[in-house]
Amino acid sequence: MPKISNKGIHMPASPIRKLAPFADQAKKEGKKVYHLNIGQPDIETPEGMLNAIKNIDFKVWAYTSSEGTLSYRTKLASYYNKLNYGIKPEEIIVTTGGSEAITIAMMTCLDPGDEVIIPEPFYANYNGFACQNDVVVKPIMSFIENGFALPSIADFEKLITPKTKAIIICNPNNPTGYLYSRKELEDLKLLALKYDLYIFSDEAYREFCYDGESFISPMHLAGLEEHVIVMDTVSKRYSACGARLGCLITKNKKVLSTALKFAQARLSAGLVEQIAGEAAIDTPDEYFEKVNKEYTHRRNILVSALNKMEGVFCPNPGGAFYVVASLPIDNADKFCQWMLEDFSFENQTVMMAPATGFYATKGAGYNQVRMAYVLNADDLQKAMICLENALAIYPGRVINTTAAQEN
Amino acid sequence: MPKISNKGIHMPASPIRKLAPFADQAKKEGKKVYHLNIGQPDIETPEGMLNAIKNIDFKVWAYTSSEGTLSYRTKLASYYNKLNYGIKPEEIIVTTGGSEAITIAMMTCLDPGDEVIIPEPFYANYNGFACQNDVVVKPIMSFIENGFALPSIADFEKLITPKTKAIIICNPNNPTGYLYSRKELEDLKLLALKYDLYIFSDEAYREFCYDGESFISPMHLAGLEEHVIVMDTVSKRYSACGARLGCLITKNKKVLSTALKFAQARLSAGLVEQIAGEAAIDTPDEYFEKVNKEYTHRRNILVSALNKMEGVFCPNPGGAFYVVASLPIDNADKFCQWMLEDFSFENQTVMMAPATGFYATKGAGYNQVRMAYVLNADDLQKAMICLENALAIYPGRVINTTAAQEN
Repeated sequence: MPKISNKGIHMPASPIRKLAPFADQAKKEGKKVYHLNIGQPDIETPEGMLNAIKNIDFKVWAYTSSEGTLSYRTKLASYYNKLNYGIKPEEIIVTTGGSEAITIAMMTCLDPGDEVIIPEPFYANYNGFACQNDVVVKPIMSFIENGFALPSIADFEKLITPKTKAIIICNPNNPTGYLYSRKELEDLKLLALKYDLYIFSDEAYREFCYDGESFISPMHLAGLEEHVIVMDTVSKRYSACGARLGCLITKNKKVLSTALKFAQARLSAGLVEQIAGEAAIDTPDEYFEKVNKEYTHRRNILVSALNKMEGVFCPNPGGAFYVVASLPIDNADKFCQWMLEDFSFENQTVMMAPATGFYATKGAGYNQVRMAYVLNADDLQKAMICLENALAIYPGRVINTTAAQEN
Repeated sequence: MPKISNKGIHMPASPIRKLAPFADQAKKEGKKVYHLNIGQPDIETPEGMLNAIKNIDFKVWAYTSSEGTLSYRTKLASYYNKLNYGIKPEEIIVTTGGSEAITIAMMTCLDPGDEVIIPEPFYANYNGFACQNDVVVKPIMSFIENGFALPSIADFEKLITPKTKAIIICNPNNPTGYLYSRKELEDLKLLALKYDLYIFSDEAYREFCYDGESFISPMHLAGLEEHVIVMDTVSKRYSACGARLGCLITKNKKVLSTALKFAQARLSAGLVEQIAGEAAIDTPDEYFEKVNKEYTHRRNILVSALNKMEGVFCPNPGGAFYVVASLPIDNADKFCQWMLEDFSFENQTVMMAPATGFYATKGAGYNQVRMAYVLNADDLQKAMICLENALAIYPGRVINTTAAQEN
């Protein structure tokens, strides 16, 4: 029997999806499972986007150009330019989801053995994409105590070697919800210029900033034109995760022409998605205002409920729709599995993502979980009651010293 | 300015798409361009598939499971089992086009430096996918003189090293249209078993076999269960290239579980595509009969017209919708560009793919082009008249010795 690859052996399973078989089993047993494990919102996709699908009038479902249709890229540029990105359509390559934007950026800029610095905890699939490309992730720790703010630039500098090629920043952050400040991004800019590093800016959650705070992109910072690659997606913006439509944006011409070769190899992104994506850009502002209000409400419910639980600490995040909380538990992987396998409260339980999968440092985040507030307020409240009851009887309960200090 | 990766530098541009700017320019100048360069058929997508899109009734365009929806995989299994593949739904991973099936198969089975043997000329993007994964392509020459039949097993054996992990076979073949026989596949089977190699079976053109010949898959050969990975797509079968929907099929459990980890990293294939793909499986047989008849007719027109031209030789392919022809020219890249830049006949010209991009051996196929017979018979005939006129006045015309011998 032929062997699988070493990279296949080392490829991590998704921490968001790996407990799915236990959830399936729980459901088979008749339990109601509240899914806080995955960033799949219940928010409705804008009608205009869905209508664009229903109204397709082509007879041949054809390839588009590899960089995406000109009409979609033109419309996308107008969207970005409302945000003051100063982008031309030819500086955009349309991708199959944000995932493909990330892999194309990695392939374009990084060779096997090259290093990329990422503040941890980070979006777990960066590990997977790095593994695919034999790229080395150098994690830099951020801490729950200060809400997972950007680590100090001095700490970044300690990790830089001749192999360091890029920094990945996800803003607002998945999994922590932290919204980076202009000052933090300006600091990163100086670092990128000093060491001639790429900044990969994952902006999947750009629209989700709360409490009146503004989103700042490295695209807003003059002097970084050759260094920034934005990786974007419509998944969260329009609650259209299953559309698999994203893009890569850069003003670096060499990166663009090289990325296009990778885009050509896979032919094109989906035609129907691009038609729908184009329509989505006309989504009225009220849609986003309503969604933003809804997520703010949910975040407040979740953060408040969590911090009322004994031994639990959850910072109040400024964006995205995730929180990372520390719990009074021995092991988040065990706990999340136990919740599905062995626990129920009024025949309900909660699925969460163990935070360990979002850290590259072994052992880090052992008592933390990520929760996505993608359920309605009522379900979220029920999920929190479940969690509180679970923590009360979990056999591996321990006093969480961090939480004890903070609460 | 930070550097791009070495793999980015070495990544080949698509030979199918790299002349696109010249075609755009020709069109701007008012020329009609017959596109024989790309396998984008003009055949209509089945109505049932398009209606499935128009009738979507979800409110949230959500992720599917990473391996694809169970309902689509169940339906797909029924399609494959009509072809006697003996496949269960859980042996299928739904992918974003055939392209992703190929990259996932490579990542699952091959590490940087590992070697894959591919009969050349071959689908040019295999080079791109190999480059992405730092995998080494070992080409094995097939020859226009015998219609690009499978090279001898002795020739394969000469290329095998401890680094050889897989053979890629595309059947019916893109770009040559050659349909491999049961005997050829049985020979490959013995080779794969002797050296414990994977067979990656690219079956994008399975439905396109002419003259009453049957398609044979390595899936039909007992004893290869651990060795075969089928890479499939709906692109050609349903003339739905822009759907970006494919799948990977294997009975090798270790490959399946490893491939799933790569599939999880990119979350899921498109939801709308899977809904449409499911509907497509109910496409009536008459659709395929009609399409098959149409392609046979077109192939006959093209092959006959080509072989009537002085100095041109084109084998009569048994499948797919491509031919590779040798022309009395000095350089196919130059010729194809000249056709777009400097030539027109009655204000028309033809875009073809230089065959050089389908060979890994430098210099091979220098006088060959690939043509896709994806236009209607009338346009094909006009394109052939154009080509004949072009060959008559092309400044780089030379006597093609191969063609001279064969004609």
